Amino acid sequence: MAVNLPPPSDILSVPGVRLGVAEAAVKAPVRADVAVMALAEGAVTRAVFTQNAFSAAPVQVAKAHLQASQPAALLINSGNANAGTGSAGLEAAKVCTAAVAGGLGCPADAVLPFSTGVIGQPLPVERIASAVPQALADLNEDGWLRSAQAIMTTDTVPKAISRRAVIGRGAARQEITITGMAKGAGMIRPDMATMLAFVATDAAIEPVALDVCLQRAVDVSFNAISIDGDTSTNDACVLTATGAVGNAPLAQKDGDFKAFSETVTEVCTWLAQAIVRDGEGASHFITLAVEGARDDCEAREVAFTVAHSPLVKTAAFAGDPNWGRILAAVGRAGVDALDLNGVSIELDDVPIFVAGEPAPDYREAEGAVVMARAEYTIHIHLGRGDAAARVWTCDLSYEYVRINAEYRS
Amino acid sequence: MAVNLPPPSDILSVPGVRLGVAEAAVKAPVRADVAVMALAEGAVTRAVFTQNAFSAAPVQVAKAHLQASQPAALLINSGNANAGTGSAGLEAAKVCTAAVAGGLGCPADAVLPFSTGVIGQPLPVERIASAVPQALADLNEDGWLRSAQAIMTTDTVPKAISRRAVIGRGAARQEITITGMAKGAGMIRPDMATMLAFVATDAAIEPVALDVCLQRAVDVSFNAISIDGDTSTNDACVLTATGAVGNAPLAQKDGDFKAFSETVTEVCTWLAQAIVRDGEGASHFITLAVEGARDDCEAREVAFTVAHSPLVKTAAFAGDPNWGRILAAVGRAGVDALDLNGVSIELDDVPIFVAGEPAPDYREAEGAVVMARAEYTIHIHLGRGDAAARVWTCDLSYEYVRINAEYRS
Repeated sequence: MAVNLPPPSDILSVPGVRLGVAEAAVKAPVRADVAVMALAEGAVTRAVFTQNAFSAAPVQVAKAHLQASQPAALLINSGNANAGTGSAGLEAAKVCTAAVAGGLGCPADAVLPFSTGVIGQPLPVERIASAVPQALADLNEDGWLRSAQAIMTTDTVPKAISRRAVIGRGAARQEITITGMAKGAGMIRPDMATMLAFVATDAAIEPVALDVCLQRAVDVSFNAISIDGDTSTNDACVLTATGAVGNAPLAQKDGDFKAFSETVTEVCTWLAQAIVRDGEGASHFITLAVEGARDDCEAREVAFTVAHSPLVKTAAFAGDPNWGRILAAVGRAGVDALDLNGVSIELDDVPIFVAGEPAPDYREAEGAVVMARAEYTIHIHLGRGDAAARVWTCDLSYEYVRINAEYRS
Repeated sequence: MAVNLPPPSDILSVPGVRLGVAEAAVKAPVRADVAVMALAEGAVTRAVFTQNAFSAAPVQVAKAHLQASQPAALLINSGNANAGTGSAGLEAAKVCTAAVAGGLGCPADAVLPFSTGVIGQPLPVERIASAVPQALADLNEDGWLRSAQAIMTTDTVPKAISRRAVIGRGAARQEITITGMAKGAGMIRPDMATMLAFVATDAAIEPVALDVCLQRAVDVSFNAISIDGDTSTNDACVLTATGAVGNAPLAQKDGDFKAFSETVTEVCTWLAQAIVRDGEGASHFITLAVEGARDDCEAREVAFTVAHSPLVKTAAFAGDPNWGRILAAVGRAGVDALDLNGVSIELDDVPIFVAGEPAPDYREAEGAVVMARAEYTIHIHLGRGDAAARVWTCDLSYEYVRINAEYRS
């Protein structure tokens, strides 16, 4: 079902990061549904979390622990989000992380919990805590792919990617690795969704630089995708730098920082796009490219309004170049004093609507050719400024309804 | 398919309003797809239109004509929205209204055009203009039901309703009639959607009072429904007072104004709910009742965020009391400093979530009983103020996808 998303291959281990999985039967038996990432001493970790007002218990605990100390391990479970679970949920998250801390011999607040799955069900604490020793016994640097599988919910394909970059010159030249994994297929939209992403590098990065790097990467990757406009209570993206290659910690002013930051962005963008490619019921991968806006905010708002439109998305499912639905969505995006005569729309390279009028030479068959493609771009020119935005989304199919109507059954 | 929406019965004519229909083959042959409403001299008409920045050609022409003079007739076609059609679309709307004006012998700007249907296709002007004489020959006071049928697009049931009210006392006592019809089944949300509504009364109402009456009615009816969050380029709601009963025109200060205004609101609310009941693919009619908000705006925003959530709507389709999705939608509604501990949720009278914790005695079977009902209410208490809002929506089904994926085929 996923659009142009083969299973991961050539995933590189990141020295300083060991991963292990276990079967805890969180929701269903006979699958690995718990993963532990153990981080070497000295690793620096930063994270961003959901903006949903009702952040889940693990998000609250992870935020508090992250303020208290640098993490020694991350504990992730799928099958249950431990959200909407009140004070019992907070206690549950703490019991689970304590089990990991006990096994690793680290302080309890050095373990961050992450959960994804159904909301409002009690977390099966005992089953998870009992499975932790199995995950710890399984820890090894080659555990990325199996962990990427363990954190899946409605995902059909595990999502992981590796990139190499070079830092230093001459004798100090070093090749570094950046590997990331993510899960998420529904409840996806800006401000993070039912999306968990874990990215690690063996380079040493100064904490402030790591923060900047994470924020830049998330803004144009995970915060630029939408599947159904719903956000989750549990989203998080974590970036860890183990420093295992032994370089002098990279600072923002260093010449190598830009290339490093861009590579992290590349990894996050690949993972974010993978989530959309594997969007629930997706059969098309669609890029919304908005140009000519007065500012970034306006450009993003237009892109997301079109990306969220059920009418645009069902037309995309049908491969029907019903561009009036795109126009109607642009018109309701709340752009102040928008002048239709400045607006143009193209499907890939086919002009559909030019400066407020239907393109004179456009024939519907040309639009249908574009929308039959597994991947295409909807270009929207607003003609009022220089700001642009790019957002990725997918179509709305019977399969989306089936998955979300039957998710708990 | 429509939820508890029988075909109209006992529709009362409104003296001073004559309606006629014709077959123009706007989109498909062999159905009435054009309607004319002829208004008696002296009738006062007010209208509200879509807030979409790309209002369709007929909306632009109707607004201009309404400023120029009091309308003598309304011309409505289904099958083609005449939207996104540029300057040719404006010309097309004018040619069609001129045909009506010619037939009735009134000024061209005394005819208001309304169109609904597919966006971005040229309006078949000649076919509509040629059909106008047939519609004019058909004019009679009993034409409401056939007009309600002629303006349908994906509607499965025509929507019309009549109410009586009493004005005056003693010798001046008079019974008046308010009859309305509407169409719309998708692209529905606040600020009016692919929704056309025409309401008429035989009472005389002062123009300013008629404005107030229309605005009050629309705010709590057509602007309080959502099917898919998409708005249209064509929406309009028209309220006409013919004054045929001969009363002294009602003013806002008159004692009878309140009852009259409430009856208009009742008619508009019935029509708005009928649109949701006949929502594309709807199998459940759901009321979102938000209480305890700081202000009306906040209450509406929460209600609409839940009403628009594809995850809430697919759970409703499945009858699955997956209340975590409701909670997650409330959490992303953008309410400033929302405290989870003040939030409670009920499905009809079943408490699900109480003051930040899952209701201790709740059993899932109870929630499933409510969500199996054709109609139910999701109560959301925010616990931060006295403002409330009420919004109506429906579920998201396979049928919604089918209708919107196949609409043009």
